[in-house]
Amino acid sequence: MVDGVIQRTPMLPAIALSEEVGGDVVYKAENLQRTGSFKLRGALAKIAALGEGAAGGVVTGSAGNHGQALAFAARHAGVPCEIAVPGGAPGTKVEAGRSYGATVHEVGVSLAEAVAFARSIADERGLAFCPPFDDPHVVAGQGTLGLEVFDDVADLSSVVVPLGGGGLAAGVAIAIKSLRPNVEVIGVQASACAPYAGDEPPTGEVVTLADGIAVKYPGHVTGPLIDRWLDRIVTVDEDSIADAMITLMERSKLYSEGAGAVGVAALRSGAVRPAPSGRTCVILSGGNVDLGVVPGLIRRHEHASGRRLRVFARIDDRPGCLARLLDAFASCGADLIEVEHIRDGLDLHVRETGVNASFAVRGREHGDRCLASALAAGFEVYRADEPRGRVEVHS
Amino acid sequence: MVDGVIQRTPMLPAIALSEEVGGDVVYKAENLQRTGSFKLRGALAKIAALGEGAAGGVVTGSAGNHGQALAFAARHAGVPCEIAVPGGAPGTKVEAGRSYGATVHEVGVSLAEAVAFARSIADERGLAFCPPFDDPHVVAGQGTLGLEVFDDVADLSSVVVPLGGGGLAAGVAIAIKSLRPNVEVIGVQASACAPYAGDEPPTGEVVTLADGIAVKYPGHVTGPLIDRWLDRIVTVDEDSIADAMITLMERSKLYSEGAGAVGVAALRSGAVRPAPSGRTCVILSGGNVDLGVVPGLIRRHEHASGRRLRVFARIDDRPGCLARLLDAFASCGADLIEVEHIRDGLDLHVRETGVNASFAVRGREHGDRCLASALAAGFEVYRADEPRGRVEVHS
Repeated sequence: MVDGVIQRTPMLPAIALSEEVGGDVVYKAENLQRTGSFKLRGALAKIAALGEGAAGGVVTGSAGNHGQALAFAARHAGVPCEIAVPGGAPGTKVEAGRSYGATVHEVGVSLAEAVAFARSIADERGLAFCPPFDDPHVVAGQGTLGLEVFDDVADLSSVVVPLGGGGLAAGVAIAIKSLRPNVEVIGVQASACAPYAGDEPPTGEVVTLADGIAVKYPGHVTGPLIDRWLDRIVTVDEDSIADAMITLMERSKLYSEGAGAVGVAALRSGAVRPAPSGRTCVILSGGNVDLGVVPGLIRRHEHASGRRLRVFARIDDRPGCLARLLDAFASCGADLIEVEHIRDGLDLHVRETGVNASFAVRGREHGDRCLASALAAGFEVYRADEPRGRVEVHS
Repeated sequence: MVDGVIQRTPMLPAIALSEEVGGDVVYKAENLQRTGSFKLRGALAKIAALGEGAAGGVVTGSAGNHGQALAFAARHAGVPCEIAVPGGAPGTKVEAGRSYGATVHEVGVSLAEAVAFARSIADERGLAFCPPFDDPHVVAGQGTLGLEVFDDVADLSSVVVPLGGGGLAAGVAIAIKSLRPNVEVIGVQASACAPYAGDEPPTGEVVTLADGIAVKYPGHVTGPLIDRWLDRIVTVDEDSIADAMITLMERSKLYSEGAGAVGVAALRSGAVRPAPSGRTCVILSGGNVDLGVVPGLIRRHEHASGRRLRVFARIDDRPGCLARLLDAFASCGADLIEVEHIRDGLDLHVRETGVNASFAVRGREHGDRCLASALAAGFEVYRADEPRGRVEVHS
């Protein structure tokens, strides 16, 4: 049932990452799967297992990949589908479900409310509720990804897999370790929400770039499977997830969501070392990231890598002085991004004014040269780089 | 020589594009090639053809993909490499060449000056000059991509290929049409610089998102080959290139440079129709886009797709009035991006002040509802959407 609808996603050499961490790393590019994530595998398997039980329709509560996948799978199977999403879910995800023919209900404000609504209409109207991960058929479906990894990677030594509810990680681990027990399977959680790593479940809303794996409690089905089949579990922080998303984009030309990039984050942060011999396969599990998040990630990266120069200057409050300051930077190739001419709230002489400016530069050394050139032209100017700081996440 | 170093890049179903344009379209994802573009194929072939002639070293002038590819190919062949780049070339591209072991010279301000310098040191020091496209060995090397397309696409009806200098397009057309003459091969140029489409070469600097194919004159070698082997040539404008890059990112999770995305632009704009039967293969030729360009593309797309709401309001100049305005938007789920409280330069009553604000919203209809809610709360507020306008390109 899974074959023919899902794509056999490519295995790609992780050239830049292999050079960086010193191993032989490959990517299972499941972000290129239909509907943008591995979830389609489990959804197809679940509907197939339901058989006639799905004929009256399927339903789930999801703000993300599982909902899209179930809608697509239901359309393929020719059964009706309803999805409950929390009010305020990104328009793109709601639209994706609708575009596959599902009826989308916007309910409440939290995922829990949406799931409760989905269960209630399942009971009332005899629809089959399809859970996102805590179900043996879903686990088996996700396991098909493990079989592809096993088939496509010669000399496989270890597999690094994102770990949220545990459906993918359990399915992949069972598939691979049943065939070759000495392949190491490592699960990766976001440190913001890492119950499988032994952390207390976070209270309140979890804010993480890896929202696709921010599941607070191990599943009843998946919990024991994760304990039994995974070799170990590591965590990665938000900065390393943001860096991993950018690395995938810049070096590997792949667009991955935060949850899909945690394996790369684990290798780059040293939480996981590549296998000393044989290949390490990192599973990129999904690519459904809201475009709106990307500019902030890139801006942060441009600052961190020295490709932005942010300055504060005090200049004479006379005509032409700002133009001359900007000219000093332009003449050495700094490209103006933003400028603000400010007087209020600063400790300035009455004949002075303040300037905040940021420039695109070619790197840290070029930024230093531009600053030196402005100083040499007689301006009182300081570096005022944006603190690298916390990753901004729009919840 | 080409085999073993280059990746056989994947052929991926273009699911979203096929649904949109109503054909069976696949992507040759050459943006996933080592060094980020097809140029590695030609560089390897050229060095192989030079044989002992390359032993003293190779040299080229390039600000982009060809330079990186030659540096990588030279390292692989164990010969020295020098690359001349115009001063002010993006730091990332200079760094990429260096990281592959090449000596990088920053020379002059234009590509022509860099190429002239490269030719001069080739003559003086007996290095082998390796042209980016106008060379039969380079054309033959790029043709290996055509062979892979032929092998990997059953029922191939047409191939859509980016056309710049003509090395890739000629190589691919010769390979495919020699094997199966009735497959249509269509070249795509950016309308900003389309000499093969019969346009006069632009004067001055060409500014286009597709800088990788902004070549002003047909080559001596490639010109006649393009005339002989391609079925036809179409052009695409900057807006459609920008949209194509975003579509590839959002729907296909692939990161493509502008030049690499022109085939997608050609199909989405209607310049090329998918083959009525059989498969249409669109070649995504490269992925080396400066990250700095991406936030502008995304912002433009967010506005065009209604996911940004920009307003101007007149409010009373009294404490708390801005807070109440923002609250009216927040209460219906509009997420504040930018706000500016302005008094100068507007036709305002002395007790009024102006506000420019932009919000992230879930779509056009949601934006309308947010605006209606602010109006209902008694505010004088207008939509002030950013004009879709010209694509901004940083040269």
